[in-house]
Amino acid sequence: MTVSMRVVAVEITALLRQRDFRAVKDALSTLKPADILDILRELDPDNQILLFRLLPKDLAADTFAEMESDEQARFIQRLTDENLRDILNTMAPDDRTDLLEELPANVVKHIIQLLSPAERHQALALLQYPEDSAGRIMTPEYVAARPYWSVRQTLDHIRRVEFDSETIYYIYVIDDARHLLGVVSLRELLIASPHHTLQDLYNPDVIAARTTDDQETVVHLMKRYDLLALPVVDSEGCLVGIVTIDDAMDIQEEEATEDFQKMASMGPVEESYFHTHPLTLIRKRLGWLMALLVTESFTGTIMHQQNDLLDSFVVLAFFIPTIIGAGGNAGTQSSTLIIRGLALGEIEPRRWSRVLFRELAIGLTLGAALGLIMAGRALFTSHNPLIALTVGLALAIVITLANIIGALLPLTARLFRVDPAVMAGPLITTFVDITALWIYLKVARSLLGHI
Amino acid sequence: MTVSMRVVAVEITALLRQRDFRAVKDALSTLKPADILDILRELDPDNQILLFRLLPKDLAADTFAEMESDEQARFIQRLTDENLRDILNTMAPDDRTDLLEELPANVVKHIIQLLSPAERHQALALLQYPEDSAGRIMTPEYVAARPYWSVRQTLDHIRRVEFDSETIYYIYVIDDARHLLGVVSLRELLIASPHHTLQDLYNPDVIAARTTDDQETVVHLMKRYDLLALPVVDSEGCLVGIVTIDDAMDIQEEEATEDFQKMASMGPVEESYFHTHPLTLIRKRLGWLMALLVTESFTGTIMHQQNDLLDSFVVLAFFIPTIIGAGGNAGTQSSTLIIRGLALGEIEPRRWSRVLFRELAIGLTLGAALGLIMAGRALFTSHNPLIALTVGLALAIVITLANIIGALLPLTARLFRVDPAVMAGPLITTFVDITALWIYLKVARSLLGHI
Repeated sequence: MTVSMRVVAVEITALLRQRDFRAVKDALSTLKPADILDILRELDPDNQILLFRLLPKDLAADTFAEMESDEQARFIQRLTDENLRDILNTMAPDDRTDLLEELPANVVKHIIQLLSPAERHQALALLQYPEDSAGRIMTPEYVAARPYWSVRQTLDHIRRVEFDSETIYYIYVIDDARHLLGVVSLRELLIASPHHTLQDLYNPDVIAARTTDDQETVVHLMKRYDLLALPVVDSEGCLVGIVTIDDAMDIQEEEATEDFQKMASMGPVEESYFHTHPLTLIRKRLGWLMALLVTESFTGTIMHQQNDLLDSFVVLAFFIPTIIGAGGNAGTQSSTLIIRGLALGEIEPRRWSRVLFRELAIGLTLGAALGLIMAGRALFTSHNPLIALTVGLALAIVITLANIIGALLPLTARLFRVDPAVMAGPLITTFVDITALWIYLKVARSLLGHI
Repeated sequence: MTVSMRVVAVEITALLRQRDFRAVKDALSTLKPADILDILRELDPDNQILLFRLLPKDLAADTFAEMESDEQARFIQRLTDENLRDILNTMAPDDRTDLLEELPANVVKHIIQLLSPAERHQALALLQYPEDSAGRIMTPEYVAARPYWSVRQTLDHIRRVEFDSETIYYIYVIDDARHLLGVVSLRELLIASPHHTLQDLYNPDVIAARTTDDQETVVHLMKRYDLLALPVVDSEGCLVGIVTIDDAMDIQEEEATEDFQKMASMGPVEESYFHTHPLTLIRKRLGWLMALLVTESFTGTIMHQQNDLLDSFVVLAFFIPTIIGAGGNAGTQSSTLIIRGLALGEIEPRRWSRVLFRELAIGLTLGAALGLIMAGRALFTSHNPLIALTVGLALAIVITLANIIGALLPLTARLFRVDPAVMAGPLITTFVDITALWIYLKVARSLLGHI
């Protein structure tokens, strides 16, 4: 919250205490939804509801849409049905889908009943598309026009419907059956002669998504073609909605957050940090930690099997954490590069052999450098050239292999339609730890075993 | 590359071979820059230049702007000065800044000489802003209007300048000294009566960035207020440029990529995977790997010091990789949550005590659960209840502490104005490894030392 906004929050609280509602309304009218939400969050629950009810209907709906879902759920309980009805019927359809997705079934049922018949029909239709699909995130509020309309006629139409449309900067041209024929931008419309028809103007090479496309495809298309909105068509090519760039930007951020969390080996957490209950965080984290713990404990089994070697050369054990740690680091680096490359579409899985070749070369170089350093360090500690050779050689092999494992696991995941982001951080580290320990003791046995 | 685009690529190659340049031109004219670039990439170098020269000037400039910087550098060497002059003078100013940033000094000098005096002046001015600042990423091509203009006059002005403006959907109202007074959207202009003046229409509460603001601030403001473009003002409040949403979306993606790379303990890699030379990747990775290797080798020193303990209870060594591995995993999870929360503005560093309290509670729960599992496992292996107690207790303490370290290191980094993303993955793991080993052997000594 900025300093100036904190001043406004203090002022508004004072006005609320003085019950000067007209002054509160004036102060609120110049603010934007994100700022109003910040101010709301500073108030106690009673004043929150009081302030919220002083907002004009559309500003209230937009502010409500900005809230996190735990806040929305709390507000729904405290608002009167009349209040709630106003807000729900004013909300943008895509914001409403967002809301309904998160609420428990009984609350959804109650909310659906508060909607007008038309809005109810729309809300239920949008909820039928699969989660994270283009259909689920689109809004049916767009400007559509007919090919035989003149520019003037179209501009008049825009003026009539603009209030109900998420964007007026693209006009989608459709036929009688609502098939998407093409698109004209408001920019083109504005510089065209008023008597031209859209037929002469529209671009038939229109980029569109299918309702069943994943939301990542939507983001990808909008970025690739620098679009402010993307039309969404059904299986017959009929226009059913649009996705606007502000929503695409939110999705891009959400997808990155999800990848960050998956790469830390945890379930995706949808709400922001302080709005997520600690028990939810524990639930999202514990399963993975336990699975990794059990897997990692194989290292104990390996060491147990090589007991005699570790007994004869106690110094070997001293290098275990360093060798497996360095392997994990190299694997984390290469897996991160590949996962991000896959997510951004820079790497196509069919080019896996080129990835393998690159990472082999990189791994060998990194391995040779680190192996040399570590051999020197081991010589200094053990005064035994064979131990130094064992440590250096093992580390070089471990780094090379860890680098390749880090690169290939995400690619393999993609081939099996598993999210590559899972193959990162702790998972790679655990996998590499076991491999590294096995390699280290194998190298030790062949170099030191017959002494 | 989609199948249909691959068909087009094959067709165009055939037409090039037949030297049917008119047909190539026709085929290209309906394509978008990203698609043309994909086709270019399938051609051999000679045909690349041939195809590129067949493009209309503005499409060539846009396609050139889409390229990665290694491709741009190669194209610059192969184009004639005349070709290059056309493209450089047609490019959007922000795309040109992007290009000039990446090229070596002697090429920049050559390119600057090819620019027209006006474009040269502009290019040099933009390059003077600090890297990654609002000034560096903005474009000076926007629509500005005066408060006394009528709606009709403004619309006429837009029609005249639209070709030169990155967006016409916001009209910025300025005074004689170019101070930013407010903003009107094209939407508002379109529904207003033609005889009104902007004075009656414009919104004086305009959200703007300073030229020196970081590009992350720009993205944050545009997302917070759902803007399609953000005006940028200098220290006197004069309008000097705008940043459009497509660029903000690219920056959001770049910043996430940079965080992914930092969190894998490597230097930021700006180009995409296959466009980055393996030697560059090695350079970005080796320094960190070496520093972490040397740090991690402290574990060897700790084990060396506790030699007697490990000698008496060899089984203790078997659990070392598991305990330090699990600690690293817990630390990776909590650091990722905090780093992402800081990046998205969900967590304010001044609320560190609330973070500490939450992560302490979460850490204790996770530690207790994992400690119990591991104590059971140790009892099974060692048949020694004291060993089992040592392993379980040590793991519980390690998980709790690792969880807190993972949360506090990124917060501390932010306080010292270091990027929190650095405090992740390998760095946290290394730090936790040393702490975990020390705790484990400390617990072992107090429980087993006097036996």
